[in-house]
Amino acid sequence: MTSGSFIVFEGGDGAGKSTQVALLREALERAGREVTVTRQPGGTPLGQQIRDLVLHGDHVAPRAEALLFAADKAHHVETLVRPALQRGEVVISDRYTDSSVAYQGAGRELGAQEVHDLNMWAVEDLVPDLTVVVDISAEEGRRRRGAVHDRLESEEDAFHEAIRQHFLAMARGNPGRYLVVDGTLPPEQIHAEVMRRLEKLGVVEP
Amino acid sequence: MTSGSFIVFEGGDGAGKSTQVALLREALERAGREVTVTRQPGGTPLGQQIRDLVLHGDHVAPRAEALLFAADKAHHVETLVRPALQRGEVVISDRYTDSSVAYQGAGRELGAQEVHDLNMWAVEDLVPDLTVVVDISAEEGRRRRGAVHDRLESEEDAFHEAIRQHFLAMARGNPGRYLVVDGTLPPEQIHAEVMRRLEKLGVVEP
Repeated sequence: MTSGSFIVFEGGDGAGKSTQVALLREALERAGREVTVTRQPGGTPLGQQIRDLVLHGDHVAPRAEALLFAADKAHHVETLVRPALQRGEVVISDRYTDSSVAYQGAGRELGAQEVHDLNMWAVEDLVPDLTVVVDISAEEGRRRRGAVHDRLESEEDAFHEAIRQHFLAMARGNPGRYLVVDGTLPPEQIHAEVMRRLEKLGVVEP
Repeated sequence: MTSGSFIVFEGGDGAGKSTQVALLREALERAGREVTVTRQPGGTPLGQQIRDLVLHGDHVAPRAEALLFAADKAHHVETLVRPALQRGEVVISDRYTDSSVAYQGAGRELGAQEVHDLNMWAVEDLVPDLTVVVDISAEEGRRRRGAVHDRLESEEDAFHEAIRQHFLAMARGNPGRYLVVDGTLPPEQIHAEVMRRLEKLGVVEP
């Protein structure tokens, strides 16, 4: 059904995903590939409006929030990701469904499995060819965000660690579709690891 | 969990739902009950914003549309319907999940069962104590909307008839929780039928 490749970067805030997205885009374009770079949430105009609704509005019921983010994904995949894949492009997305499952499942009242099922319905089971988890510890993430260490930050550390462990568990469960990279390595070294895996997958030529 | 009663009116445009909602509210308030009247979609400020997003925006992917309407319901039920029921009130809603299933299942690319499952997840399985289907034929609905009869209207008749048949099928499948009333009868006569059923259900005293 699709002839392109779908590459996703996941990881906590400050892990260095954007840098990796940019390095990969450059490398693929140098190799002559057509590349579409996007992000979740908010990768389409509708997605941006939905995101504004959730983030800048008053209290939103947890299920409503999960459904709104899933709506963003459904629209994003149908109108942007699938058409690009069908044109044979490489689509690189900064975050995708794993982030929804990790953040909503870890922090809210909803179970990870039900958020996962909801998201899979939304995207009609479109799974990435490769998900790169850029892994950093909760402490390192806090340091990079420049946050002070107080009681609240310690609670937040536990939250970020839960999200990190979710990403790592997903990767362990499906090693063929995941690559975990150490986010404290130099960006060029991480990028080289990503390229080696994409060569193995046949996305780029060796 | 809830001590109030949840009454829903369903039916095509022009069936006379608003008239019945108003008559029932009056009767219940005369009987000394606390009543909350609401509607789907758009019964909360967030719901109104979601509704605007769907109706006044550009193309929205079908799954995204279903998810947005489900988000509206999730928020509506958690922030408005359940709290009112917990206060022991009677909540009357102009449309609820059956409309979503009927309209999205009949007219779009999605199956009725999956839209139903999605909606049940959104509202945490809150089902009305009574759903009143105000039933009119597609032709009668067209006549009441003052529409001209052309080729497009004939196609629309088929669409509205499919929705009507969905409501009737739901009612046949669960007669204890549904009441089908003939929408061509005088409003006061329909209202009397509704009141008789609510007496049987113990919502109002005989």
